[in-house]
Amino acid sequence: MDYVYLDNAATTKPDEEILRSALEETKELYFNPSALYKGGMAAKKLIEKARCDISSLFGGKKVIFTSCGSESDNTAIFSFYKRGNAVFGEGEHSAVFNCCNLLKQKGCDVRLAKLRYGGAVDVDDLLSKIDEKTTFVSVGHVNNETGAVNDIDEIAAAVRRKAPDAIFHSDGVQGFGKIPASLKNVDLYSVSAHKINGLKGTGALIFNERLLFSPLILGGGQEFGLRSGTENVLGIRVFAECAKKKYDKINENYERVSALRADFIDGLDKSLFRIISPENCSPYIVSFSAVGLRGQVVQAMADDEGVIIGTGSACSSKKPHSRIISAFEKNGKVLDGMLRAGFSPETTAEDILKAVKVLNAVTARLSGKINVR
Amino acid sequence: MDYVYLDNAATTKPDEEILRSALEETKELYFNPSALYKGGMAAKKLIEKARCDISSLFGGKKVIFTSCGSESDNTAIFSFYKRGNAVFGEGEHSAVFNCCNLLKQKGCDVRLAKLRYGGAVDVDDLLSKIDEKTTFVSVGHVNNETGAVNDIDEIAAAVRRKAPDAIFHSDGVQGFGKIPASLKNVDLYSVSAHKINGLKGTGALIFNERLLFSPLILGGGQEFGLRSGTENVLGIRVFAECAKKKYDKINENYERVSALRADFIDGLDKSLFRIISPENCSPYIVSFSAVGLRGQVVQAMADDEGVIIGTGSACSSKKPHSRIISAFEKNGKVLDGMLRAGFSPETTAEDILKAVKVLNAVTARLSGKINVR
Repeated sequence: MDYVYLDNAATTKPDEEILRSALEETKELYFNPSALYKGGMAAKKLIEKARCDISSLFGGKKVIFTSCGSESDNTAIFSFYKRGNAVFGEGEHSAVFNCCNLLKQKGCDVRLAKLRYGGAVDVDDLLSKIDEKTTFVSVGHVNNETGAVNDIDEIAAAVRRKAPDAIFHSDGVQGFGKIPASLKNVDLYSVSAHKINGLKGTGALIFNERLLFSPLILGGGQEFGLRSGTENVLGIRVFAECAKKKYDKINENYERVSALRADFIDGLDKSLFRIISPENCSPYIVSFSAVGLRGQVVQAMADDEGVIIGTGSACSSKKPHSRIISAFEKNGKVLDGMLRAGFSPETTAEDILKAVKVLNAVTARLSGKINVR
Repeated sequence: MDYVYLDNAATTKPDEEILRSALEETKELYFNPSALYKGGMAAKKLIEKARCDISSLFGGKKVIFTSCGSESDNTAIFSFYKRGNAVFGEGEHSAVFNCCNLLKQKGCDVRLAKLRYGGAVDVDDLLSKIDEKTTFVSVGHVNNETGAVNDIDEIAAAVRRKAPDAIFHSDGVQGFGKIPASLKNVDLYSVSAHKINGLKGTGALIFNERLLFSPLILGGGQEFGLRSGTENVLGIRVFAECAKKKYDKINENYERVSALRADFIDGLDKSLFRIISPENCSPYIVSFSAVGLRGQVVQAMADDEGVIIGTGSACSSKKPHSRIISAFEKNGKVLDGMLRAGFSPETTAEDILKAVKVLNAVTARLSGKINVR
């Protein structure tokens, strides 16, 4: 099937070359990495090489592998928020937001920082909610629906000035491998493989050496006792190779994807669509609305014409309106029409041309039909 | 390298044919299964087919996919033990045992049922510890170190008679696909893909429809809201195919592996080794001791001669003596020498011949050396 895939913020196509090579590499090293014979130790070495590769992208921070970004988020939150109060951005991914809701249900003092239009956290509001009793703060790096970028290192530094002992966590799933960022002041950073052409089923938590945390999954004591369960060696190898490849070209890809995104936005018929993503957001995501229509209908019609786009976070496709967009946009017609395009360095100029052509056409058709009624 | 692999209880070699076919099947269906366009729905269908395949092995029980057996165990325990008392077998895998330890640390009323010699749970002792306040019971299907089989369905029925509302969980990681068992009275059964030639990084929790549990990992609400995180479609597909293949031949494999195991035991020089596994245990595992020697040294020497065996659970290779064997065997010389062989239907008669030859030779050599000193 010949189609244009613009839902790379939901997931990406596994890198064939890296997958082939990792399959080759692990095929004869299927041994349990905890085993003490030579084969087991060789399997363990593959994991340690992957850990080292990812760690060195962030100046030697510690890395544990998990099964996904959600697990990394849950591990960070449930391990570190124990007492005092916790402050979360209102635009956090559901893997963070639903943990925050559970804490609230349990009676914890949980505070939400407002979003600015477009989905970035309102830093003034965030800081106003932090006091000396704040023990945990979580602000995502890149908003998964709008692409709004939070300057997490800067925010973490400001948080530290008000609450020196608070732990600062950031969901980095949409930023990792895409948006260069220092993690100097960031204590914990959650990342996922399948958003950067790795395999589904692998994630990691990148954290400061000094942190002592309690595992979410107990058992055989793998991952320094911080995450039990036999390690997913294949997924981990693929993940590390994809991460290296992304960081090797992070600036080049950034420029390339920025140009594609600009062309996409330019191409959209502004009488049909409103752009929701803010200025200076991630070039990998654009959030826009077919105002007055149902985003899902536009999505389905575009799909029939060979253009695949998202309607927001794939992870919350069961809810009527986006929680995140609703936090700063109250117009129901805008919320109804929400769409999300996610680009990748593999996206071509032709893909963009076809996508805007199809989106403009199906949306015009749909608007016409509705107007005629 | 030409070697004999007898550590199949630690992990197994992925089934090449199934892996190839699942890679092919998922290659163009890399979409996010939560996405609502055709590709996303097709990816979702792959998962639902896998769920159905596994469910139908157990008369339609519910199935959620997890990242590993340990996650399944943790989910079951932390979701269901809330109040009253919980009873665990003393021989549980560390993924269960360490959860039980955490509950104890938190001051919960946790009771341990003794083991009989060889590692099966002492059912009389178990039942004596159950009362009307028991809310949770966990007894593994097959002991991961000795292969001792617990008749879980029978035990669950007996538990139900004493504590009708207690939830009965069983770690089925070493039983799934190997030991036929009814789960009629079993509420929750944890299983893992990589023990049956699937990929590391996939597990499942099989459970009764009526159970309402709280997830261990919160987020986008995948797996009926019971396990968030983008689904590992490849791992899940491989898992289901491997499960079907194993259950299709479960009796044939059982007979075949039983014969191999008998030959292995027959071949071992009884002046050097003592068999620890009980009678009527899983044919897939034999636990034995090179009494007076260090199991790890025998393991390393056999490894050098091309025979790979385990020393117990790969998941607890950092502790000096096996917690499980120590529970029923107090002789330090026996504990020092512990070894575990794990068979598979792919093991050949030649493999067994070579393994016993090498094990007898290196152990004799090692005993000789030690005697000479």
